[in-house]
Amino acid sequence: MTILLYDLVGTDRSRPFSPHCWKVAFALAHKGLAYESVPTPFTAVKGVEQGVCGTVPVIRDGERVVGDSFAIALYLEETYPDRPSLFGGEGGKAAARFIERWSQLTVHPFLGAAVLMDIHDRLDPADQAHFRTTREARFGKPIEEVPVGRDAGLDAFRAKLEPLRSMLSVQPFIGGETALFSDYIVASAFQWARVISPYPVLAADDPVAMWFERCLDLHSGLGRSVSAAA
Amino acid sequence: MTILLYDLVGTDRSRPFSPHCWKVAFALAHKGLAYESVPTPFTAVKGVEQGVCGTVPVIRDGERVVGDSFAIALYLEETYPDRPSLFGGEGGKAAARFIERWSQLTVHPFLGAAVLMDIHDRLDPADQAHFRTTREARFGKPIEEVPVGRDAGLDAFRAKLEPLRSMLSVQPFIGGETALFSDYIVASAFQWARVISPYPVLAADDPVAMWFERCLDLHSGLGRSVSAAA
Repeated sequence: MTILLYDLVGTDRSRPFSPHCWKVAFALAHKGLAYESVPTPFTAVKGVEQGVCGTVPVIRDGERVVGDSFAIALYLEETYPDRPSLFGGEGGKAAARFIERWSQLTVHPFLGAAVLMDIHDRLDPADQAHFRTTREARFGKPIEEVPVGRDAGLDAFRAKLEPLRSMLSVQPFIGGETALFSDYIVASAFQWARVISPYPVLAADDPVAMWFERCLDLHSGLGRSVSAAA
Repeated sequence: MTILLYDLVGTDRSRPFSPHCWKVAFALAHKGLAYESVPTPFTAVKGVEQGVCGTVPVIRDGERVVGDSFAIALYLEETYPDRPSLFGGEGGKAAARFIERWSQLTVHPFLGAAVLMDIHDRLDPADQAHFRTTREARFGKPIEEVPVGRDAGLDAFRAKLEPLRSMLSVQPFIGGETALFSDYIVASAFQWARVISPYPVLAADDPVAMWFERCLDLHSGLGRSVSAAA
């Protein structure tokens, strides 16, 4: 049975943008598993699969429902051990926890703030209201003010990527010669920005940008199945 | 034949302090390989094994001489595959490259500056002269001025450790349930500071400090074989 992926969308149902959902899309493709994306606006998230998770991504694989992107990756690795590994062994699985935290704490805060209004502007009215309420509570200011400092912070953000950039002089992927879930974790943050906003978060000649392009090429260009935001 | 580890020391030959040498000491212990530390002051580094490497650590394992801590770890993993793995598979090996870069770019700069004079003060006069010349060229100022901002920068440094700290709420080591080379990479930076300086780089109740204490307990307390600097 085809796996269902509940995938966050805005007004255009064909443009999923959640970084965490993209991690799962890449992971499913990596495992060679067919899946069907279930477009899910913000205000529908709570009701997904009777609300057992409360957030997306959620997958339904036959009788099994699994939420949380990392938990889904672990589920896929355990359930489909004969498919290409997402972690490359136990050491890679453990290290992916570090990379997930690095991405969430280093990459996400800037990107999330920089493209906040781009997200808002691409939502249905009911989702916009939900988004405004939850994000204004999180940021403590009107959402219009959140991306204001993005130009001033861009160089500092790019500098924070130096561990990844420096590593890329040794190997083409965080997974080594080929991509693993750790690559999808970080690439999905950049995919989030790419799909939702024309804001240029990376310089084109940045090795990080070139790595991201390689990630977009993977799995028959899965990442490019949604065009960059104009 | 016992492996030789050329190990950077100051005036007290029994207190090796180089973070990169400590990575190798931990790796050798992890593999259960007996080794002999060859105390090597700064000015002796260039002559180690006819200067084939130019830096320490260097190991001699029978006829093989290997330099660079990461290369040594790879050598040990390949040469002693039946011993406990340092990487936990290919994914862990690749991810260790990222963690090495993160440690070098996030942990080392603050620690290296904070304890610079502590290192200097624990060297022989000839090594002090070498150290002053090379470090003043690197920092572009008198070495006495380098640690001056450490108190002002301490909170920001501790904040930068958040990816590691956050990961430690999920698992006790970067390697997962047990330590791997990635743990030794980061722990050796803190060991460097611990062995050379009384400066309190971590708060005692920081989960990172507790992880470091666990690392010091490993391999019969190898890290504690050198006491904390007073």
